[in-house]
Amino acid sequence: MKKSPNKKMWSGRFTQETHRRVETFTASLPFDRRLYAQDIVGSIAWTRALFQAKVLTKEEADQITEGLKTVKKTIEDGRASFSEQDEDIHMAVERLLTEKIGELGGKLHTGRSRNDQVALDLRLYLRDEMKHIIEAIKDLQAVFVAKAKSHIDVILPGYTHLQKAQPIRYAHYLLAYYEMLDRDRQRFLDGFQRVNVMPLGSGALAGTNYPIDREALAEALGFPSVTQNSLDAVSDRDGAIEFLAAASTLMMHLSRFCEELVLWSTDEFGFLELPDAFCTGSSLMPQKKNPDVPELIRAKTGRVYGHLMALLTVMKGLPLAYNRDLQEDKEAVFDSVDTVKASLSILTEMIQGMTVRRKAAARAAENGFLLATEVADYLVEKGLPFRQAHEVVGRIVRYCLDQQRDLTQVSLKELQKFSSLFQKDIIGYLNLEASLERKQQTGATAKNRVLERIRQIEEK
Amino acid sequence: MKKSPNKKMWSGRFTQETHRRVETFTASLPFDRRLYAQDIVGSIAWTRALFQAKVLTKEEADQITEGLKTVKKTIEDGRASFSEQDEDIHMAVERLLTEKIGELGGKLHTGRSRNDQVALDLRLYLRDEMKHIIEAIKDLQAVFVAKAKSHIDVILPGYTHLQKAQPIRYAHYLLAYYEMLDRDRQRFLDGFQRVNVMPLGSGALAGTNYPIDREALAEALGFPSVTQNSLDAVSDRDGAIEFLAAASTLMMHLSRFCEELVLWSTDEFGFLELPDAFCTGSSLMPQKKNPDVPELIRAKTGRVYGHLMALLTVMKGLPLAYNRDLQEDKEAVFDSVDTVKASLSILTEMIQGMTVRRKAAARAAENGFLLATEVADYLVEKGLPFRQAHEVVGRIVRYCLDQQRDLTQVSLKELQKFSSLFQKDIIGYLNLEASLERKQQTGATAKNRVLERIRQIEEK
Amino acid sequence: MKKSPNKKMWSGRFTQETHRRVETFTASLPFDRRLYAQDIVGSIAWTRALFQAKVLTKEEADQITEGLKTVKKTIEDGRASFSEQDEDIHMAVERLLTEKIGELGGKLHTGRSRNDQVALDLRLYLRDEMKHIIEAIKDLQAVFVAKAKSHIDVILPGYTHLQKAQPIRYAHYLLAYYEMLDRDRQRFLDGFQRVNVMPLGSGALAGTNYPIDREALAEALGFPSVTQNSLDAVSDRDGAIEFLAAASTLMMHLSRFCEELVLWSTDEFGFLELPDAFCTGSSLMPQKKNPDVPELIRAKTGRVYGHLMALLTVMKGLPLAYNRDLQEDKEAVFDSVDTVKASLSILTEMIQGMTVRRKAAARAAENGFLLATEVADYLVEKGLPFRQAHEVVGRIVRYCLDQQRDLTQVSLKELQKFSSLFQKDIIGYLNLEASLERKQQTGATAKNRVLERIRQIEEK
Amino acid sequence: MKKSPNKKMWSGRFTQETHRRVETFTASLPFDRRLYAQDIVGSIAWTRALFQAKVLTKEEADQITEGLKTVKKTIEDGRASFSEQDEDIHMAVERLLTEKIGELGGKLHTGRSRNDQVALDLRLYLRDEMKHIIEAIKDLQAVFVAKAKSHIDVILPGYTHLQKAQPIRYAHYLLAYYEMLDRDRQRFLDGFQRVNVMPLGSGALAGTNYPIDREALAEALGFPSVTQNSLDAVSDRDGAIEFLAAASTLMMHLSRFCEELVLWSTDEFGFLELPDAFCTGSSLMPQKKNPDVPELIRAKTGRVYGHLMALLTVMKGLPLAYNRDLQEDKEAVFDSVDTVKASLSILTEMIQGMTVRRKAAARAAENGFLLATEVADYLVEKGLPFRQAHEVVGRIVRYCLDQQRDLTQVSLKELQKFSSLFQKDIIGYLNLEASLERKQQTGATAKNRVLERIRQIEEK
Repeated sequence: MKKSPNKKMWSGRFTQETHRRVETFTASLPFDRRLYAQDIVGSIAWTRALFQAKVLTKEEADQITEGLKTVKKTIEDGRASFSEQDEDIHMAVERLLTEKIGELGGKLHTGRSRNDQVALDLRLYLRDEMKHIIEAIKDLQAVFVAKAKSHIDVILPGYTHLQKAQPIRYAHYLLAYYEMLDRDRQRFLDGFQRVNVMPLGSGALAGTNYPIDREALAEALGFPSVTQNSLDAVSDRDGAIEFLAAASTLMMHLSRFCEELVLWSTDEFGFLELPDAFCTGSSLMPQKKNPDVPELIRAKTGRVYGHLMALLTVMKGLPLAYNRDLQEDKEAVFDSVDTVKASLSILTEMIQGMTVRRKAAARAAENGFLLATEVADYLVEKGLPFRQAHEVVGRIVRYCLDQQRDLTQVSLKELQKFSSLFQKDIIGYLNLEASLERKQQTGATAKNRVLERIRQIEEK
Repeated sequence: MKKSPNKKMWSGRFTQETHRRVETFTASLPFDRRLYAQDIVGSIAWTRALFQAKVLTKEEADQITEGLKTVKKTIEDGRASFSEQDEDIHMAVERLLTEKIGELGGKLHTGRSRNDQVALDLRLYLRDEMKHIIEAIKDLQAVFVAKAKSHIDVILPGYTHLQKAQPIRYAHYLLAYYEMLDRDRQRFLDGFQRVNVMPLGSGALAGTNYPIDREALAEALGFPSVTQNSLDAVSDRDGAIEFLAAASTLMMHLSRFCEELVLWSTDEFGFLELPDAFCTGSSLMPQKKNPDVPELIRAKTGRVYGHLMALLTVMKGLPLAYNRDLQEDKEAVFDSVDTVKASLSILTEMIQGMTVRRKAAARAAENGFLLATEVADYLVEKGLPFRQAHEVVGRIVRYCLDQQRDLTQVSLKELQKFSSLFQKDIIGYLNLEASLERKQQTGATAKNRVLERIRQIEEK
Repeated sequence: MKKSPNKKMWSGRFTQETHRRVETFTASLPFDRRLYAQDIVGSIAWTRALFQAKVLTKEEADQITEGLKTVKKTIEDGRASFSEQDEDIHMAVERLLTEKIGELGGKLHTGRSRNDQVALDLRLYLRDEMKHIIEAIKDLQAVFVAKAKSHIDVILPGYTHLQKAQPIRYAHYLLAYYEMLDRDRQRFLDGFQRVNVMPLGSGALAGTNYPIDREALAEALGFPSVTQNSLDAVSDRDGAIEFLAAASTLMMHLSRFCEELVLWSTDEFGFLELPDAFCTGSSLMPQKKNPDVPELIRAKTGRVYGHLMALLTVMKGLPLAYNRDLQEDKEAVFDSVDTVKASLSILTEMIQGMTVRRKAAARAAENGFLLATEVADYLVEKGLPFRQAHEVVGRIVRYCLDQQRDLTQVSLKELQKFSSLFQKDIIGYLNLEASLERKQQTGATAKNRVLERIRQIEEK
Repeated sequence: MKKSPNKKMWSGRFTQETHRRVETFTASLPFDRRLYAQDIVGSIAWTRALFQAKVLTKEEADQITEGLKTVKKTIEDGRASFSEQDEDIHMAVERLLTEKIGELGGKLHTGRSRNDQVALDLRLYLRDEMKHIIEAIKDLQAVFVAKAKSHIDVILPGYTHLQKAQPIRYAHYLLAYYEMLDRDRQRFLDGFQRVNVMPLGSGALAGTNYPIDREALAEALGFPSVTQNSLDAVSDRDGAIEFLAAASTLMMHLSRFCEELVLWSTDEFGFLELPDAFCTGSSLMPQKKNPDVPELIRAKTGRVYGHLMALLTVMKGLPLAYNRDLQEDKEAVFDSVDTVKASLSILTEMIQGMTVRRKAAARAAENGFLLATEVADYLVEKGLPFRQAHEVVGRIVRYCLDQQRDLTQVSLKELQKFSSLFQKDIIGYLNLEASLERKQQTGATAKNRVLERIRQIEEK
C-alpha cells in the first residue's frame, strides 16, 4: 500500500486507503469542531498529567502546551485549515499541533483514546451550556416575576378545557410559568451534577497503561469527582439524554405559554398585544400581524423531542463499550442547545414588550358564569351539601342560558325558585374581586397570596 | 330533561344525558381504578382538612372517614361494583361513599375539584412506585456486585465496535452496569423529590373558597412541602414525564445488557449460559433454547420510549389549566411502572442463575490481537512517540494477518524488522494478566482497582 | 427432570421447567387471544394444505378441522380455559384441540412454526381491521360532505397563524377535512395491498420440509399472492409499522379538527355548539360544559405516535430472522386499532349533532380586516404592482388601527390620501360575498366551486 | 416609523421594525435556500399563468421570466448575496429579481401567497428526491441480487433469537433484503403519487382573486392533477410525513442488515470481511479495524425516526390553515433525504467490496444442531405425530449436550433408544445440502427456488 499524504494516523494495519465517500460519510468534523475549545483544554490537562506521570519531560510538556494554545488561537482567528480527512476535531487538533511542533505532537495521544477524549469533551461542553441555560432560565423567570409584580391588579378569566372557569389574576397566571421554569432549572442542575464527573484516563475501554493521576486531572479540569468504571465511562451518554429530556420538558412548558400567546393575541380573545418588532406580516394579506415567534417556539418543541427520541434510539441495545453509533449524539445535543438558548432569550425579550389589554381581559372574566362556583359555595355555607348545591347552580345556569342572561342578571326572587337558601347576601358572591380574595391558601390567586409568593421569590 | 338513575353528578346545566358511547370513550375508570387506595387516602386527609376548616362537624368528618375506609375495604374485597357511568375512580369512590352513608357523602367534594384530586393521586402513586423501583434497582445492583466479587478472576475480551479491543475482567464488565444503575437510581430519587410536593387545595385552578390549611394537609399525607401555584398544580404533569424519562434511560441500560446476554450466549461467542428456566424452546425446532427474557426486555425498551413520546406529545402546546388531555398520562405511566418493575426483578433472578464459561472467555481474549496496544506502549516506553509506535504495531498486525498468525507467535527477530527498539522484555507485555494489571487508575480493570470499587460499594 | 403436567410442548431438550415468573413475563396470551379467530382460520387452511401434501389423511384432516371449529366455538362461548402456561394463542389453541381430539392434535403443527403462523395471524388481523377503518373513514367523510352541503351559505373567518385572514365558506372548511381523510383512506388502502400477501409455509425461517402448495393456501385464505422469501416473511413487521404510520397521520388530522372544535366552541370564538350528550361537566364548577371528546381525541394522537415510535424502536437493528422482540408488535397495533376506530366513530356521531352559530361566525368575518387583500387586488387591477399595493393597504390598515376603525368605515376621500387610484368602485370589493365569489379556481372557496367539489365527491 | 433600507415587503401596517434577533430566530433562508431551483421554476410557471390570466402583458411576463432565469444563474454561480433580512428563499428571490428588473418585480407575487408557494416548492423537491431515492434503492437491490447470484452455493447458519436454527443459503439471506427494499420502493412510489398534486393557486388559504387556470399550471409543472381544497393545500404536510415514515422504515431495514454486518464481521462469527476502504482504525489500538459504516447507518436510523417524531409533533393539533410552525418541516426532510441517499449509496458500494468467508460459514452451519428439525420430520414421515417427534428429538439433543457431542455423532443404536422408528435412512437427513433441498416452496431456501426468484427479479 502506497501511503498518500492524507494517510490516516491509524492506518498501519490497513491495505487500502479509506474510500473518499467513507470519509465524508463518517466525518464528524463538520459539526464537532464546535468542541475545539473543550478538546484543547482537555489536551492541555492531559499533557500535564503525562508530565506528572513522567511520560513527558517538562520541556516536552511545555512545548505541547504552547503548541495547543497556538492551535486554539489559529482556530479562533479562522486561520486553521480543516479537511474531511481529519475525521474529527480530535484528529484535526493533533494534526495542527504536529504541523506546529513536529513529531513531538505524536506524544500527546499517549495512553489516551478518542473514546475517553470525546467523553470528556462532551461533558465539558454540556457543563458549559447547562450553566448558560440555567442562567437564561433565571432571566426568563425574572421577567415573569417582574411582569407579575407590575400587573398585580389585572384580572383574567381562568380556563379549564379552554372554557371559562374562574377568575384569576394575570400575575398568578404568569407565576405558574415561574414555577414550571423552576422545576426545569432544578432538572438542569441535577443533570449538571451527574455530568460533572471526569472520564479522562479511561483509555479505550479498560484504563490506561500509564500512571495517570485521574483525581489530579479532575481537579485541574474543575471536576469534583471521576468516573468509577472505564467501560461505562466511554460508552455512557446518559448526560446527553438527561439534557435532552430536561430540554424537552422545558420546551414543552414554553410551548404551552406560546400556545396561549397565540390564543390571547387573537382578535377573539384579545387579552394581549405582542410587540410589532416580534411579529411578521404576510406576503399577500396587508392587514396581517402574525405571532411568528411563539408559533416557532411551539413548533421547535417537536424538534427537541425528536432529538431525544433519536438519541434514545441510537443507544438502545448497544453492546459495550464504545461504538461508532455514539457519534450521533452530538448534532442532537448541539441543535437542542441552540434551540433552547434562542427560545429562552427571545421570549425573555418579547415578554417585556408585550402589553395586556386589561379591559378586554376583565370584561371577559365578567361574563361566562365564572362565578357559578361562588354561588354553589354560598349554598354550602347555608348548609346544603356541596353535591346538591352544585346541582342547584347547574340548573340556574341552564335557566340563564335558555334566557340568554348572565348569572348576575338573575333576581333574588328568581334564585329563590331554585333554592330557598338564597338571601340578599348572595350579591357579595357575585363579584370578581370577592371571588379572587376568597382563594386564600398557599398558591391561590388572592392578592396577598400572589404578593407573598413574589416576595418569597425575590428573597431567594 | 328527565334524569335517569345514572345521571351525572355535574348534570345540572345539561339538557341531554351523556351519550352511551361517550361514556365509554371518555371513561378512565377501567385504568384509574388502580389509584383507589391513593384516592381514598387523599379523601380522608381532605375530610380532616374540611373539619379543621369548620366545613364539616366532627361527627360528619368521622362518618365520612369511616365510610371511606369501608369503601376501601369493599374494593379490596372485590365486592365494589364499578360502572362506566362512574367516569373515573374519583366519582366511583364518591358514589360508593354516598351509597354507604347517604347524602352526607355529597359534602366530601366541598372545595375540591377532580383537577387537584387527581394531581394528588398521581403524585402519591408515583411516590410509592418510585420507591419500589429504587429498591428494585438496588437489588439488581447488589446482584451485579455479588457476581463481580465471586468472579474476580474471570477474564473476557473487551470490545469496541464489537471488535476485540483489550482484555478486561468480567467483574469490571459487570460493575459497568452497577454504575449505570446508580445513575438511574439517582435520577429516580431526584424525580421523587420533585414529585413529593402536595397539590391538594388548588381547587379547579384558582384555589379554594374554604380556609384549608394546605401545609397541615401536606404533613398529614407525608409531603414535605406544597405546590406554590394553583394553576400550575392542576396542569402540571412533569412528574410523570420525568418518571418516563428516567424509566426510558433505565430500560436503555437494561437493553444494552440484554443485547450482550443475547450475544454472549450465542454458540459463536459462548461466554455465558442462561439458566434453562429463563429460556424457552421452539414450537418447530427441537434443539432451540432461546434467550426470550433478554430479548423481551430489550424490546420493551421501545414500549417505554413510546410512552414518553406519547406524554410529551400530549402536553405540547396545552393551554392552562386542566384539559381533558391530561387523562392520557395514566396508562403510559402505569404500563411503564409494570414494565420497569418486571424487567428489574426478572433480571435480578436470572443473573443469579447464569453461568460464565470462563475457559471460552479466556480463550477468546487470547487471540485477536488484544495486546497490540501493550506492544505500542512498550515502544513508547523505549522512547518512540506514541503516534509512531501505533504505526509500527499496526504494520506488525498487518504482517500477522497476512501470515495468519497471532501477535504472540511472532519472534523477536521478526519484531525487530519493524523496530529496532524491541528487546527480550517485550515478552512481559504479551500477557493477558500483565495487560490487566497495568491498568491502575481509578475505574480501570486491574484487580486491586476492581476490588477497591467493590469495597467502596459495599461500604455505602 | 420430572415433567409436570404443565410441561411445555418444546421442553424435550430442557433440564429445568420454565420459571413461573418467566411464564408471566413472556406470555402473550393475555393480549394475543384477540387473534383466536385468525389463528383458527389459518390452522384450518393449514390442515387442508397438509392433507393436500399427503401429510394428513382425509379423516385426520376432517377431524382436526372439526376440532378447530369446536375450539373456536368454545372460545366464543367463553368456555375455554386459558392459562399463562399456554404462552400464546397458538399454543393455547393447539392444547385445546388436543384436549378435544387427542394425540392427533399433535399433527397440526407439522411443518409449521409459530414464526410463520403469527405472521399470518397478524396479516389476517390487519387486513380485517384496515377494512373496517377504511369504512369508518368513509363514514366520517360522508358526514363532512353532508354537513358542507347543508351549510353552503355559512361564512366563517379563515385564519392563518390563528389571526383572521380571509373569509371562507364553512362548507369549504369542512371539505378540507374530507381531503385529508381521503389521503388517509388511500394510505390505508396502499398498506392493505402490502399486507395482503400470504406468509404461511415459510416455516421457522427457511421454508418447510413438506410439499405444501403455498399458492393454494393463499387462495384458500383470500390472499392474491404469497411472500417471496421465507427469512423475510417471518421477520417482517412492515405491515404493522405502515399501519401505525397511517394511523398516526390520521390521528394528526383528527387532532387538528378537534383543536378547532375546542377553539370554535369557546365563549370567545363561539362559532360552534357541541351537543350536550358529547360533553361533560365539572365536579366543582356548575356552569362548565367541557369539550371532552375532542380533547381526548387530540390527546390520543400522542398515544398512537408513541406506539409507532415503540415499534420502530423495537425493529431497529434486529438481526434476521424471528426474534422474541417481535412479540411487542401486538399491543401497539391493537391499542391503535381501538383508538382509531373509536375516534372515528365518535366524531362521526358528534359532528352530526353539532350546530354552527352562523350569525356569530359571519359577524366575526366582518371585522378584522379580512378584506384587506381585496383592496390590494383592487389597486392591482388599477395598475399598481402588487408589492406596492400591499404596502399602500398596509398603511391604510395601520391608519384604521390607530383610529380604531374598520376598513369598511374609511371614506373614499381618506382612501385617496393613500392612493389616487381609489374610485367609487372600491365599494364592490369591501363585501364578504364578493370576496368569496372572486375565488374561482379549482379548490377555492367560491360557492359554485365548493358545490362542484361536493358533486364530484358524490359521484364517486 | 422611519423605514430603513432593510424594511420588509409586508411592513405597511407595522410601527416597529423587526427585532434583529427575531430576524435570526425566524429566518428559514439558511436552510430553505436549498429550494431555490424549485422556487424559481414555480415562479416562472406562475408568471406564465399571470400572463394567461391577463394580469401581466407578454412583455412583462417575458421580462420577469428572463429576470428569474438570471437570478437562478446568479445563485448557481455563487454570486447571489443572501441576508437574514430576506426571511426566506421566496423573499430572497423576489428581492434579487426586483434588483435586476426594477419595480416590475413587484408584480410577480400578484395573487400568490408564500403559503401556496412553499407548498409547491416542497412538493417539487420531494418529487425530485423521491425519484432519486427510488433509483438508489434499485441500485442497492441490484447489488443484493448480483451478490446472491454469484454466491448461490454458499451456506450459512440461519438464526432465530440469534441462536442457530436451520441452514440457509447466503443467496437466500441476501434476497431477504431485496424483498424489504422492494416494499420500501413501493412505499416511496405510493408517497410520490400523493405528493404529485399541484397546490399553487390556493392563495393564502381561500383561493386567489385572479382567473388562474390551475390545471394549465399543473401541466406546465408536470403534475397530473391539482389539489382540491385551498385550505387543505396550504396547511397539509402529509407528503413530508409520509416521506419520513417511508424513510424511517427503509432505515430500519438497513439497520438490520448493518447489525448483521457488524455481527458477521466479528472475530466470533467471522462470516464476512468488510473492505478495508470502508473501515477505520483506532487512535489508540493498532490492531483495530472497525465497521464504522454499518455502525453509523444503524445509528442514523435514530436520526430519521427523530425527524418523523418531530414533524408529527409539530403538526399535532394545529388549527387550519397555515401556521408558522409549518416552517419546521424542512430541516427534518432535508436531513432525512441526505441521510437516506448517503446510506443507500455507501452500502451499495460497500457490499460490492465485501467478501464472504464461505468455509467459516459452512463450518458454523454444521454444528449447533441445525438439523434437529430434519430429524423430527424424519420421525413424522415414519408416522409419529409431530408434537411427539419434537419431544423425542428434544431429548436426543439434551443427550448430545450432556455428552458434548453433535447430532451427527450419535449412532443409529443410540437413536433407537429414543425411538424405534429410526432406521438407516436417517443418515440422509443429517446433511446440510439435503436439508436445504427439502425446502421446496415459493420463498424457501432450496437452490432452484432461490434461482427462480433471481430469474423473476431479473425479468422485471
